[in-house]
Amino acid sequence: MNKWYLEHNPDDDIAVSTRIRLARNLRAYPFENRMTPEQKKKLLSDVKTLLQNASLKEKMELGFIELEKLTPEQNFSLVEKHLISPAFSQNPKNAGLALSPDESIAVMINEEDHIRIQTLSSGLNLKQTLQAANRIDDILDASLLYAFDEKLGYLTQCPTNLGTGLRASVMLHLPALEANGVIGRISQMVSKLGLTIRGTYGEGTRVNGAFYQLSNQVTLGISEEGAIENLRAIASQIIAQERASRSAELGDYMEDKVWRAYGVLSSARLLTNDEFIELVSILRMGVSQGILKGISYGEINALINTTGPATIMAQEGRAMEAGERDKLRAAIVRERLYSLNEN
Amino acid sequence: MNKWYLEHNPDDDIAVSTRIRLARNLRAYPFENRMTPEQKKKLLSDVKTLLQNASLKEKMELGFIELEKLTPEQNFSLVEKHLISPAFSQNPKNAGLALSPDESIAVMINEEDHIRIQTLSSGLNLKQTLQAANRIDDILDASLLYAFDEKLGYLTQCPTNLGTGLRASVMLHLPALEANGVIGRISQMVSKLGLTIRGTYGEGTRVNGAFYQLSNQVTLGISEEGAIENLRAIASQIIAQERASRSAELGDYMEDKVWRAYGVLSSARLLTNDEFIELVSILRMGVSQGILKGISYGEINALINTTGPATIMAQEGRAMEAGERDKLRAAIVRERLYSLNEN
Repeated sequence: MNKWYLEHNPDDDIAVSTRIRLARNLRAYPFENRMTPEQKKKLLSDVKTLLQNASLKEKMELGFIELEKLTPEQNFSLVEKHLISPAFSQNPKNAGLALSPDESIAVMINEEDHIRIQTLSSGLNLKQTLQAANRIDDILDASLLYAFDEKLGYLTQCPTNLGTGLRASVMLHLPALEANGVIGRISQMVSKLGLTIRGTYGEGTRVNGAFYQLSNQVTLGISEEGAIENLRAIASQIIAQERASRSAELGDYMEDKVWRAYGVLSSARLLTNDEFIELVSILRMGVSQGILKGISYGEINALINTTGPATIMAQEGRAMEAGERDKLRAAIVRERLYSLNEN
Repeated sequence: MNKWYLEHNPDDDIAVSTRIRLARNLRAYPFENRMTPEQKKKLLSDVKTLLQNASLKEKMELGFIELEKLTPEQNFSLVEKHLISPAFSQNPKNAGLALSPDESIAVMINEEDHIRIQTLSSGLNLKQTLQAANRIDDILDASLLYAFDEKLGYLTQCPTNLGTGLRASVMLHLPALEANGVIGRISQMVSKLGLTIRGTYGEGTRVNGAFYQLSNQVTLGISEEGAIENLRAIASQIIAQERASRSAELGDYMEDKVWRAYGVLSSARLLTNDEFIELVSILRMGVSQGILKGISYGEINALINTTGPATIMAQEGRAMEAGERDKLRAAIVRERLYSLNEN
């Protein structure tokens, strides 16, 4: 089955992906930080059985992963692919993950909240992605008693999630706006509207490849639909700005930059993940500007999602030194670009 | 007819080219700086006729160029290809050049000396290159009366050329020695032995692409053969050092560097001459290390000899802005590497 990131969806020239996360807790248990190991085991087992039965009935083919049984590489690969949170990764005891074959549905059990439902889609695709999350939510809601307050909404361990328990985010690729130095202004603008924008890759303040996460911050006193619509409207505005900025760039210079990135990606024998993200960012822009033909956004998404340090090691089934990973990453990228060029 | 730089000769992995220059003056005239325009005209006409007759008789097919009739681009292209000196280029009045179709023989008339015979060859090929120069010298000597002193040897306008009038030089490609920071030490060593080494490309102290000219400085109290043998022995030593340093470089790192250079050269849409020289230097090393197959030193020499700023403009038959040249240079390099890759 095709992974979610290979699908074509609206605005995927700039909107890399859409993510919905619903935080849910059960009335029957205290919040995670106060649960006993026995309670966690019971919760894990109950939710697992419930999801497995639903998966069979609804033909969702959800797989089930016990985090404790993963190698460190397999575990961290799930973080790299944004399928689990770093906090979840670091506390594998009694932590379970239900995952669909296309990786568009990931349900974490015994995370910060009892249950976190996450759905993913390519492009700017909030409605459908929310629907997919709601479908899982409905299944669970039919059998479990959620911790829900008529006035406050869904109760969550951290008050910032109280209310809808919804976090919606869109990953935007903004190289032209970043080059124009307007990300700071956009950040101020969106924060006034209850949203936040931050870099996806890179350490500290350094944003790698100009990939940004735009997400909602307000969960209280707002409907799910309202939150989604707010995010959609602002994302659309930023996307339009990015498109305009790209068109304004000098043609020769842009073309050269894109082809150089292609040249290095298709020739280098050593590629760090940081450099790869920087170059693939330029490649993605080249596709959107019609400079590179025969490469789809889905294929670029796939390249990013299969060459993270841990994902490479998980694929090889062993720990590797950085230099060895860089060599393998370069080989994977080269082969993939070569096969695209062949088509 | 194939240009001289396409030929394969000994040590051409590191010795790009060998050049011989003989400075000659005629007894019948004062030195250039004291000649009248009429004398220069007469000298030019006499030597031209002599060379044209010899060319017919000996099937050398020498062409004849009057510098005054060239466009600035054509004129400076000859400097870029090291066929004439910058000083000669800047004083085109009554300046004549006899040039063989393979560009291995270039005779300047009315340069700093009355006649300067220059011969070129690829690789480390001093004996043959000197023989080619001597052949022209003999032809001229048979009909003209040289300014020659039994004790001093050939008389030249500048005392640094007095004696043999011979300047022999070898262009060496020394990226590994440069990276190891030992060029300074080599420079001190060779100067004690009557030689000098300096960068071929680049402005001021900046050496571009690690191409160096090693040449003799002593012309007095030494035989031509002695000068040549001295230069050959030291060049061979430096070549051996460079080879050893290349082998000592880390394989993965070197391979990556070479392939990246190839990737940029075969993809970029804008290439300044400086960047081109830097990258082609790495490419050349990649060929010598067996990393790049199917590319010969001759083809790399040809790339360098056909993409200089003035040479590109001379080829196009018009003056061009730097940006336009960079675009055309990138297109030429791309096409050439593509066709090599096809073979």
